[in-house]
Amino acid sequence: MTSFLGLNWAYLQLLEDEQIMRIGVLTGGGDCPGLNAVIRAVVRKGVATYGHEFVGFRDGWRGPLEGLTKPLGIDEVRGILPRGGTILGSSRTNPFKIENGVERIKDNLAEQGVDALVAIGGEDTLGVATKLTELGVHVVGVPKTIDNDLGATDYTFGFDTAVNIAMEAIDRLHTTAESHHRTLVVEVMGRHAGWIALHAGLAGGANVILLPERQFDVEQVATYVEKRFQKQYAPIVVVAEGAQPLDGQMVLHNQELDSFGHVRLGGIGQWLAGEIETKTGKEARTVVLGHIQRGGTPTAFDRVLATRLGLHAIDAVNDGDWGKMVAMQGTDIVRVPLADATRELKTVPLERYEEAEVFFGS
Amino acid sequence: MTSFLGLNWAYLQLLEDEQIMRIGVLTGGGDCPGLNAVIRAVVRKGVATYGHEFVGFRDGWRGPLEGLTKPLGIDEVRGILPRGGTILGSSRTNPFKIENGVERIKDNLAEQGVDALVAIGGEDTLGVATKLTELGVHVVGVPKTIDNDLGATDYTFGFDTAVNIAMEAIDRLHTTAESHHRTLVVEVMGRHAGWIALHAGLAGGANVILLPERQFDVEQVATYVEKRFQKQYAPIVVVAEGAQPLDGQMVLHNQELDSFGHVRLGGIGQWLAGEIETKTGKEARTVVLGHIQRGGTPTAFDRVLATRLGLHAIDAVNDGDWGKMVAMQGTDIVRVPLADATRELKTVPLERYEEAEVFFGS
Amino acid sequence: MTSFLGLNWAYLQLLEDEQIMRIGVLTGGGDCPGLNAVIRAVVRKGVATYGHEFVGFRDGWRGPLEGLTKPLGIDEVRGILPRGGTILGSSRTNPFKIENGVERIKDNLAEQGVDALVAIGGEDTLGVATKLTELGVHVVGVPKTIDNDLGATDYTFGFDTAVNIAMEAIDRLHTTAESHHRTLVVEVMGRHAGWIALHAGLAGGANVILLPERQFDVEQVATYVEKRFQKQYAPIVVVAEGAQPLDGQMVLHNQELDSFGHVRLGGIGQWLAGEIETKTGKEARTVVLGHIQRGGTPTAFDRVLATRLGLHAIDAVNDGDWGKMVAMQGTDIVRVPLADATRELKTVPLERYEEAEVFFGS
Amino acid sequence: MTSFLGLNWAYLQLLEDEQIMRIGVLTGGGDCPGLNAVIRAVVRKGVATYGHEFVGFRDGWRGPLEGLTKPLGIDEVRGILPRGGTILGSSRTNPFKIENGVERIKDNLAEQGVDALVAIGGEDTLGVATKLTELGVHVVGVPKTIDNDLGATDYTFGFDTAVNIAMEAIDRLHTTAESHHRTLVVEVMGRHAGWIALHAGLAGGANVILLPERQFDVEQVATYVEKRFQKQYAPIVVVAEGAQPLDGQMVLHNQELDSFGHVRLGGIGQWLAGEIETKTGKEARTVVLGHIQRGGTPTAFDRVLATRLGLHAIDAVNDGDWGKMVAMQGTDIVRVPLADATRELKTVPLERYEEAEVFFGS
Repeated sequence: MTSFLGLNWAYLQLLEDEQIMRIGVLTGGGDCPGLNAVIRAVVRKGVATYGHEFVGFRDGWRGPLEGLTKPLGIDEVRGILPRGGTILGSSRTNPFKIENGVERIKDNLAEQGVDALVAIGGEDTLGVATKLTELGVHVVGVPKTIDNDLGATDYTFGFDTAVNIAMEAIDRLHTTAESHHRTLVVEVMGRHAGWIALHAGLAGGANVILLPERQFDVEQVATYVEKRFQKQYAPIVVVAEGAQPLDGQMVLHNQELDSFGHVRLGGIGQWLAGEIETKTGKEARTVVLGHIQRGGTPTAFDRVLATRLGLHAIDAVNDGDWGKMVAMQGTDIVRVPLADATRELKTVPLERYEEAEVFFGS
Repeated sequence: MTSFLGLNWAYLQLLEDEQIMRIGVLTGGGDCPGLNAVIRAVVRKGVATYGHEFVGFRDGWRGPLEGLTKPLGIDEVRGILPRGGTILGSSRTNPFKIENGVERIKDNLAEQGVDALVAIGGEDTLGVATKLTELGVHVVGVPKTIDNDLGATDYTFGFDTAVNIAMEAIDRLHTTAESHHRTLVVEVMGRHAGWIALHAGLAGGANVILLPERQFDVEQVATYVEKRFQKQYAPIVVVAEGAQPLDGQMVLHNQELDSFGHVRLGGIGQWLAGEIETKTGKEARTVVLGHIQRGGTPTAFDRVLATRLGLHAIDAVNDGDWGKMVAMQGTDIVRVPLADATRELKTVPLERYEEAEVFFGS
Repeated sequence: MTSFLGLNWAYLQLLEDEQIMRIGVLTGGGDCPGLNAVIRAVVRKGVATYGHEFVGFRDGWRGPLEGLTKPLGIDEVRGILPRGGTILGSSRTNPFKIENGVERIKDNLAEQGVDALVAIGGEDTLGVATKLTELGVHVVGVPKTIDNDLGATDYTFGFDTAVNIAMEAIDRLHTTAESHHRTLVVEVMGRHAGWIALHAGLAGGANVILLPERQFDVEQVATYVEKRFQKQYAPIVVVAEGAQPLDGQMVLHNQELDSFGHVRLGGIGQWLAGEIETKTGKEARTVVLGHIQRGGTPTAFDRVLATRLGLHAIDAVNDGDWGKMVAMQGTDIVRVPLADATRELKTVPLERYEEAEVFFGS
Repeated sequence: MTSFLGLNWAYLQLLEDEQIMRIGVLTGGGDCPGLNAVIRAVVRKGVATYGHEFVGFRDGWRGPLEGLTKPLGIDEVRGILPRGGTILGSSRTNPFKIENGVERIKDNLAEQGVDALVAIGGEDTLGVATKLTELGVHVVGVPKTIDNDLGATDYTFGFDTAVNIAMEAIDRLHTTAESHHRTLVVEVMGRHAGWIALHAGLAGGANVILLPERQFDVEQVATYVEKRFQKQYAPIVVVAEGAQPLDGQMVLHNQELDSFGHVRLGGIGQWLAGEIETKTGKEARTVVLGHIQRGGTPTAFDRVLATRLGLHAIDAVNDGDWGKMVAMQGTDIVRVPLADATRELKTVPLERYEEAEVFFGS
């Protein structure tokens, strides 16, 4: 047996003869609870059922682009099911924006003897996967976005975890709001789609929920808040980071200096709290949940979903069903064309928002 | 205005004229996280959107049977969203097994001026609801079972909470199993369907999962356990309370006296731990999760599902769509005939079990 | 029996003859998990063991100042043990800063027939209690501060809950930091004392901990961060909101505009993340935990501590031991003069900080 | 450099000259959240501050007895702070009950070039440590017992975690008890000392708490339960596994066959539930928390305590302060003679139990 560049060529020959594949795995975009569960399921079933061999590519598309690899076998995926983040690292690198990006990827895959890729990621990562497929690279995709805004799948893993973390925060804030008779504005993730705000707001018993899908009237928000105070309860306002007031309402008149002598102004949550304070004459405070929504151990829903997606992704690879993405529809895992996933953003439909409005201001 | 038996007749007259209904709500069967979220949503939307009036019936069908009521308005449902259990109480009373049961229910509904019922419950409670509908009582059903085994709905609320509690317990048991090189058998709920075992086992990284849907071979279980020990890891076996070994395997040879001098034998978990100990020569311990799976605050998934079911149930009542049950299909809430819900038990299909088997023994 | 202003004078006469007291309870300052547990214990033991009667004063010292009361009996304290916040409301009202404040309090106490007060609060609330005691009001104090910075007691309730919430957030942030190779700066509560930062940092495995008690060298922090990256791990920096860099280091050169076109600058955490980014050339992100640290259900430690403080406070009242505060010393609850509690802030001693430094940068 | 048996003799020579020690670490007895935090702190400070070298002994005293070792350096303790269990494994092996046990330990320590041992464990493990110290072995002890029943230390790590897990279970059981109007008996750990029962019962709002320290009157328990039902609330009874009824009360008249046709009888919890059911005529159910109390991630209190104990233990080793145990007294970590720790069991004093009785039956 000869070995070159750390690769065992005799074994690679064997792989070819025996229909055994050498499969690369990568994770791209923002991290998301459940990534490790997908990786584990892919590798566990790939090795146990099909006898395939794996290599991890580090930091999203940067891995195959720069030839950054990591061993990926049964031992490496041991114990990672409950762990947040991704053992492979992540990045937002886009090979199509880099000179000779695609060629370099093809070269590196060839050099590593990689027959196929499992690409786990969101719109950007899967967008690259779609184009690479058209250029002859063997890719199967697994959808990932904490925001739940990918088409063609009912849910994405990570979303349920984020919603639970936000809900637990809201649960905690109710008592502090009521003890101090103040409004608490909770800013959650969601630049373009308000799924986290909608579900966390419903689950947490929020009194107003504001989404990117629909500009809000800050006067109406203040009215809801007032109504709630009149009933002797303190309001919780859940606002997605991408929510916007009606055109012209964001006149910045609530600027104040912070403790370092500078204009204090964060995101939409902080602006909104200032407005509410001004309009109602009662204290309002903001909590920006930020990165704690995307870290840490996944919920059961996300672990099961991620595991099942991983199991079905390796089946698709084994079938040579390139250019497909695994997706959840109802309780089933199905395969859909990769291109479908990224065709359009799945935003919150109006009827789902109206469904929730019955709780506003009360 | 005259008042009799606590009822305001003038207002009842008004109700009739104005298409305003007086609606009874009851919860039957085992308690389940999310019941209060349903009650809250029904009442909040019923009052705010439709102007209906509500009365709570206590302890399942015993409430309308014996005329046991409880005030149920906006104040009563305040703050109950995150609370487990049911503010209305529950029971397994079946009016069809009680003399003149149906007549007594009809009489009590009439006396209370109740136009319609929202019945929240599982197979038994909804079975009664189905029959009462056929006898002219106005009922809309909301499905509830922690076991997730009701047909016509993708998920039932309470299930996700139970799975998370079981998963967290399994997470905890991994470290104790490995520190002591022993097997831990976790017995979870599921008499007839193994959904909790399957999902908690997948989410918790169990090494064997045993369901009521498929008799298990205790020799095979012992082999899986041995395989795991050979890899220097300790096994976690998740067993549904209704799982059974192959015919003839349950020869009770592992009886031992407990600290009170009596035969120690609990459920299937304890029997199985004894068998594993005998066959592998290594310690095995059992944890029976029991009632902690069904108590306490619901997860976000269950709060959102329960809330949406409640909102759609009151819509169905308002539409006079009697004999229907609200159900989750994909991400939609739909209406299905009550009779469909109880027609057959939704058990774990073979392919879902086989999907999980790749993790067994490894 | 005659009744005036809602008070039953005949019963009040009885109270006097029988050594039964009418006791007011109030909670002041920032809310804190465990306040309700104290209230419950005071009332439960006061009624069951001593036969006393209670009245709740609303919103801290504003209650007795303005005669704002709330019924407070066995029914009112039912089910509040696990609930965060305070059923009595809170405020930072200081009667000594209000004209005739003390007289108004004395008048209101007399009018309500109140013999003694249990005042639950921090430095400010207990400072008022101390002065009122000197002016003849019968007060027993219960120490409360989430920051754990009150003298004369080993721990204050709420602190353990805050530390656990911060630790859980840090646990979550480790995986997101490592997936993206970025620094995460976690800003926790603690204006004058760094107890939360120290304990949460130790418990969460932080790589740097910065406290108000000791100015930090931002160059040294950057060095620690670099060291951690060199080992291929991402750093977590825990900073108390009141921590300060060395004199002259806070030259604001990392100003950037936020999405609303304004200078983005929050607290110390955000400033520090900017510095770290500049100095290391690697992304740094901030999470400000804020109000979620003080809301929600208390930990077991805080529930037991708060309950025991409440039980001992009512004993002190029953003994007429005015001007005392109950405190935790070792595993005992003892009584100390109220004045001791507020004499000086209990900050983190240098040796405790040095104890933690072994983990910095590694 | 020559190497023999995996040991580098040249380096060992260096160790001797330079006052650098080679230190063995072991964990014995039942596993306990926080063990890994101790190990990590010992190694981190030992390496970083003092330059010592470590070797892990596996499975308690079995490790040095049989020469079972494990590498133990900075890399091995990376990421273990939040993990339950012990990376070193544990056992209840007692070298004094094994032929030539002490000689074999001395031989193995010599062969491994081990100068000193850090022994982390409970009564048994530290009992061995005490005797070995008298025989000239260099040992420093770290106290560990989930039951909190070791003398000379205010708290042991693991206890706070166990209490929180039990409290969360009790929180969950309240709602299920009330929904079904039944008693729930929660059996928690504690064979000889009732600390977990006392604290979890207080924190969970139990209506009766039963400890090993005091035989209980089952008639009195039934009276408490009845009283609670009369107030329309369902009772939670917390019973330590070692609690016992008054002499003669345990006449086994509540035997019933389980689903396998055998006498169903578990521990004291199940017996008690049977008695309560018989005496009150209302359903009673048992939950035995078992092993989930000792697994999983430690609370902040336990992580900080364990970390500090580890830091001080390595200081004691470095000082050559053999035969000492580190202990928590108030907020300080102190050193006490190892013999003190095991001299007598620290049980719940009567006054602590009486303090809690005010909540019984109400």
